Amino acid sequence: MILTDSLLDFFLETRRYTETLCQPLEIEDYVVQPVVDVSPPKWHLGHTTWFFEEFILKPHARDYRIFDEDFSFVFNSYYETVGRRVVRSDRGNLSRPSVERVYEYRSYVTAAIEHLFSTPKDQQLNDLLEIGIHHEKQHQELLLTDIKYILGNNPLLPAYSKNFLGHPLEDHTQEWISVDEGIYEIGHDSDGFCYDNELGRHKVYLHPFEISNKLVTNQEFEEFIKAGGYKNFELWHAEGWDWVNQNKVRSPQYWHSIEGAWHCYTLGGLRKIDPLAPVTHISYYEAFAYAQWKGCRLPTEFEWEAAQSSFRWGRRWEWTESAYLPYPYYKKAEGALGEYNGKFMVNQKVLRGGSVATPAKHTRPTYRNFFQPYLRWQFTGLRLAR
Amino acid sequence: MILTDSLLDFFLETRRYTETLCQPLEIEDYVVQPVVDVSPPKWHLGHTTWFFEEFILKPHARDYRIFDEDFSFVFNSYYETVGRRVVRSDRGNLSRPSVERVYEYRSYVTAAIEHLFSTPKDQQLNDLLEIGIHHEKQHQELLLTDIKYILGNNPLLPAYSKNFLGHPLEDHTQEWISVDEGIYEIGHDSDGFCYDNELGRHKVYLHPFEISNKLVTNQEFEEFIKAGGYKNFELWHAEGWDWVNQNKVRSPQYWHSIEGAWHCYTLGGLRKIDPLAPVTHISYYEAFAYAQWKGCRLPTEFEWEAAQSSFRWGRRWEWTESAYLPYPYYKKAEGALGEYNGKFMVNQKVLRGGSVATPAKHTRPTYRNFFQPYLRWQFTGLRLAR
Amino acid sequence: MILTDSLLDFFLETRRYTETLCQPLEIEDYVVQPVVDVSPPKWHLGHTTWFFEEFILKPHARDYRIFDEDFSFVFNSYYETVGRRVVRSDRGNLSRPSVERVYEYRSYVTAAIEHLFSTPKDQQLNDLLEIGIHHEKQHQELLLTDIKYILGNNPLLPAYSKNFLGHPLEDHTQEWISVDEGIYEIGHDSDGFCYDNELGRHKVYLHPFEISNKLVTNQEFEEFIKAGGYKNFELWHAEGWDWVNQNKVRSPQYWHSIEGAWHCYTLGGLRKIDPLAPVTHISYYEAFAYAQWKGCRLPTEFEWEAAQSSFRWGRRWEWTESAYLPYPYYKKAEGALGEYNGKFMVNQKVLRGGSVATPAKHTRPTYRNFFQPYLRWQFTGLRLAR
Amino acid sequence: MILTDSLLDFFLETRRYTETLCQPLEIEDYVVQPVVDVSPPKWHLGHTTWFFEEFILKPHARDYRIFDEDFSFVFNSYYETVGRRVVRSDRGNLSRPSVERVYEYRSYVTAAIEHLFSTPKDQQLNDLLEIGIHHEKQHQELLLTDIKYILGNNPLLPAYSKNFLGHPLEDHTQEWISVDEGIYEIGHDSDGFCYDNELGRHKVYLHPFEISNKLVTNQEFEEFIKAGGYKNFELWHAEGWDWVNQNKVRSPQYWHSIEGAWHCYTLGGLRKIDPLAPVTHISYYEAFAYAQWKGCRLPTEFEWEAAQSSFRWGRRWEWTESAYLPYPYYKKAEGALGEYNGKFMVNQKVLRGGSVATPAKHTRPTYRNFFQPYLRWQFTGLRLAR
Repeated sequence: MILTDSLLDFFLETRRYTETLCQPLEIEDYVVQPVVDVSPPKWHLGHTTWFFEEFILKPHARDYRIFDEDFSFVFNSYYETVGRRVVRSDRGNLSRPSVERVYEYRSYVTAAIEHLFSTPKDQQLNDLLEIGIHHEKQHQELLLTDIKYILGNNPLLPAYSKNFLGHPLEDHTQEWISVDEGIYEIGHDSDGFCYDNELGRHKVYLHPFEISNKLVTNQEFEEFIKAGGYKNFELWHAEGWDWVNQNKVRSPQYWHSIEGAWHCYTLGGLRKIDPLAPVTHISYYEAFAYAQWKGCRLPTEFEWEAAQSSFRWGRRWEWTESAYLPYPYYKKAEGALGEYNGKFMVNQKVLRGGSVATPAKHTRPTYRNFFQPYLRWQFTGLRLAR
Repeated sequence: MILTDSLLDFFLETRRYTETLCQPLEIEDYVVQPVVDVSPPKWHLGHTTWFFEEFILKPHARDYRIFDEDFSFVFNSYYETVGRRVVRSDRGNLSRPSVERVYEYRSYVTAAIEHLFSTPKDQQLNDLLEIGIHHEKQHQELLLTDIKYILGNNPLLPAYSKNFLGHPLEDHTQEWISVDEGIYEIGHDSDGFCYDNELGRHKVYLHPFEISNKLVTNQEFEEFIKAGGYKNFELWHAEGWDWVNQNKVRSPQYWHSIEGAWHCYTLGGLRKIDPLAPVTHISYYEAFAYAQWKGCRLPTEFEWEAAQSSFRWGRRWEWTESAYLPYPYYKKAEGALGEYNGKFMVNQKVLRGGSVATPAKHTRPTYRNFFQPYLRWQFTGLRLAR
Repeated sequence: MILTDSLLDFFLETRRYTETLCQPLEIEDYVVQPVVDVSPPKWHLGHTTWFFEEFILKPHARDYRIFDEDFSFVFNSYYETVGRRVVRSDRGNLSRPSVERVYEYRSYVTAAIEHLFSTPKDQQLNDLLEIGIHHEKQHQELLLTDIKYILGNNPLLPAYSKNFLGHPLEDHTQEWISVDEGIYEIGHDSDGFCYDNELGRHKVYLHPFEISNKLVTNQEFEEFIKAGGYKNFELWHAEGWDWVNQNKVRSPQYWHSIEGAWHCYTLGGLRKIDPLAPVTHISYYEAFAYAQWKGCRLPTEFEWEAAQSSFRWGRRWEWTESAYLPYPYYKKAEGALGEYNGKFMVNQKVLRGGSVATPAKHTRPTYRNFFQPYLRWQFTGLRLAR
Repeated sequence: MILTDSLLDFFLETRRYTETLCQPLEIEDYVVQPVVDVSPPKWHLGHTTWFFEEFILKPHARDYRIFDEDFSFVFNSYYETVGRRVVRSDRGNLSRPSVERVYEYRSYVTAAIEHLFSTPKDQQLNDLLEIGIHHEKQHQELLLTDIKYILGNNPLLPAYSKNFLGHPLEDHTQEWISVDEGIYEIGHDSDGFCYDNELGRHKVYLHPFEISNKLVTNQEFEEFIKAGGYKNFELWHAEGWDWVNQNKVRSPQYWHSIEGAWHCYTLGGLRKIDPLAPVTHISYYEAFAYAQWKGCRLPTEFEWEAAQSSFRWGRRWEWTESAYLPYPYYKKAEGALGEYNGKFMVNQKVLRGGSVATPAKHTRPTYRNFFQPYLRWQFTGLRLAR
């Protein structure tokens, strides 16, 4: 159980950190949406704020005055329960509300929450606040990956921050960790925060397997490219092969071949790839094809969870072979918050771990991230199993 | 082990049955392709024949003369190993080769196989023939569902055959079958034929569950419609909800509301729906939404396999909650036949059972059918679990 | 004025000729629709018949019994006045009514018309019959070009008829015909049949110009290809340049480069191109680019009409620079027949002349054909002006 | 002939006015591109500047240092001659260069031009400068219409400027101006500036006609709506009817029905429509349908030019019946500037006149504007003829 006091600190720290992430941006960077999966930074700032207003202030704060009636429409993401919303593909068409106005909205709502939680609240309200904080942390990660997409697809390739701390190297020796056959318990079991999709701790039977203690590196992935991996249909799923050919994919996202040497755009600007850094910005299709090429496979999310204490993780979101499905006793939350997870449980793949873009306290061994298999604008990588 | 003799009988019987299925057709019906997922009957006739020519006669029959060099191009489906192929969406644009010529091709290849197998062959060749036979049986089912689509989407709604034997009714009492918690063995384990995706018999841990002894009926599904099931986003996956709205789906495929009463197109023509017949031609999204509405869920494919001996099945392909993924020790076959299953193991759902369109000897308790969740031109239905 | 008698002969002869055109077809060829602009031959047979039934028999033939109520829906092309119609892109999805049944429909309607016109009719009814005949002649040309498309895009490239009379050669010397400045009268002025879009004989002022006595030949067009004409954006309209690049156009339609030599599919099968034959199956964009490359231009339809008696024409439909617009006193017909021409008078180009596929008595110096500028499945060619 | 001195004043005044037009904008408004036909204001600012740099400074200003090598790529619009360009639909995805940097670019280039033209230049260079000025004036109009689109499609409907001077009313009596039959001279004939598409003064023969002295007003257009004009296919071109139905068009752009009364978004914000103001933001299809409904027609561009001195014009761009085609002696300019007009001469309609958004000195009786018939984000209106 979290006391209101420390929760409020957690809230304020989270709100500040979102804004810190945006400090290097020009106003123009807040506005654009180069592809439908990327949201304008301005929208992230507003949407995370709207979440607190909609689910906490409106129903629970007596005398709360809504900041702007139109914002409920503009900043709703996908909650059908809460009425109309701007179609996702139109987010980048909105020059108003201005960035300045969105920051005013943030201050207003932050202050209102601070005021509301200045006196102790019951468990239910504390829980709502906590989910709102984790929601904003999740958007911090998206914010950073969306900023990378916005700048990394601009022909001028501007850096986000020269000081951005990049990739801890995977410079240790590759070893296979053996895991015994048997029954394992999967799912969240502590008092700490988790999403509903982690609940339903349950048993799975695992057959013996081995999992690598290292992520696949840029150097290793470059060998796959050199060996013609992108041109050999035998390594790919049928729909992965279509994806490769329709999109003319020949390397991970952000890679550029310049005078024969692979470079990649990083948040610090365009650089030569670091051979020992973990490969990133690959789709599930590419992760799968690489594993096929090595005669290995991707771990399932259950194998990963069972083995995770034996290796270092958290630098890349790691694609697993598992489809995103409900755990045995899965029960979605009531009302609008029930739309958070359950309704995405089809045609997506589970990722485990975390990444350099993941904010502190935002991941854990049972955390289940999920994306469509073709997406790769997140800091996604892979770990082999066999 | 199957003796060459009985295998040859099995082959000839299968070849004949394909042609029997086509007897009620007009020549024109063999040619069209109303949507990309449906293939022209002519194409099924040619493609199943090409399979025997390509994988058995060409490599193994001494002195075999290819029937027509162009057919290898025209009738390849998706085997990248075997060279160029007509794009799937263009199959319905080909008026030639004529139906008559395709029947000549069938006779020619059938005779050549008969000749080749008139003397005993080794295990490997027998296995190839067996897989070719099962491949054709699989296409017999597709043939019937594609014919239904072709006729059922024609504004004249012509019957395929007035004598088509429809739906055994689900007129027994609904009961819940309880299955105990524990470890279960899943996957093929007999000497009989199976596909590579059923192999890798392995253990899964199942938590206690209940599964219905009945398929959901038309009557029950009509209640879902009446209760506004298609209009309540809370019951649907996000992508299912988009699918419903983009396609304006308001009922199972082939249902027509005529003067206030639900009718459906059947292979015997347009009829009033039979309340006790199992509902069919629904997508996974609809199956899931129905289960949500009943406060239940779909079984996983493991639950289904563990429980299947306790209920009657085989009238509908039953959607499960399981994604189509490789079993623990899955190893795809070498060469072109390796393209049969493995490369489809992403973004599809497993169906278990069989249907009124499934030919004899073509399904078994471990058989794994699989389709994208939006497809519903197969005889798909659902069984509840909880 | 046309007497009923000779009109009836004209009718019967036209009906027969349509069927003669179809004699070389297999039943399968009647059914397919490889692209939306092409209609299945079966549809042409039915639609031309429906025209007589809908506009003459239904309103004017006492006691006439409609052949099949559904056909009005199936064979309406674009007449909004007459109710529902099958979406154009779905014509190739209809295996029924069968070809046999469509021929029965033809016989039935032909007989009914013959019966109706066995006694003299008034001018209005004769006019309707005459327009129906010309409508069917127009479809005879489309029928042949659609058949060419269906067979010429089949990978087997089957011939339509080995005896098809191809291209009279353009083997005379090229000369420029000079036309003086002045006022010219444009539009239909005889008693004979014409469409409403030719009426409104009116004056135009033409500045002096020259027009070629020859069509551009295959040989000449091949020089344009060799000179990089398809790769030089300066020769093209902006939307023509997009069309070339999106469709990767590198030659006229039906041309194939085989071992370094240009061949083309003709109704008689695949052949080496004849250097002296007029080039055909080019879009307006290509005609324009060719003229630009030669430092010339296309004639306007007015120039063409003013000069046409000085040169031989009728082998190709000739693209003009003119947009398809109403003549000064244009007045569209009343009712459904008013939909024949006027509603297409935007974003189309006028073609003048006729082609090897044009049936006898179907064109004249004032005839205005029209197509979107990207279309080239007709026998289209070009004549230079300057 | 224009003296360098007054030309330079004209240049500086034009440059300033562009920036004046942008004064009411927020930085965010400079960036977005809600539809492909609209360009971000930032892009207009950069592109008009690039035009002077590319065509005057680079080739003619000794020692000129290019401001930024990348800008040539970013701000090229469609000039294929000048190399790579950002795909039009991607303009709104570029957050950089920043607005501030674009203004620096403007100042830099303006100063360089001022410096270059501080000494007298030859005719050719003066002509280039003049065309650059008119090019920028053309973009001033687009800038204003694009700003209207950006703000008018934002759900918050922000005003551009409360002081924007709207619509001079069409409050005079409607009268028909008669024009006699005869030969008229069409095209530019003075010493003043004009585009190449106006040249080639030539004769046309006009039959007698009448043209209205008034533009059609909102009130009149509302009657068309009330009479079911948008639902009556007989009034529309076939492709216009498709356009209406696919886009569910029921009124001019920017019209909103609020509690039964028509309002429209104006640059001054949302207002009740003014009954006597000329209707605006209609497509050619709508203009044509309205004219059909009134039993009239649109004038041709020749009729308009012949009659224009007899009526007041300049408040709306007026759709004509004429397709955008070359005049008899049309010759496009050499080099990149030749891409200005000629390559758009297909599938577009001519508009004559000018509009409230047209800057001073930017239109004239022979000016030919042109757009695709479905576009209506310009201030387009209509005048009847008969």
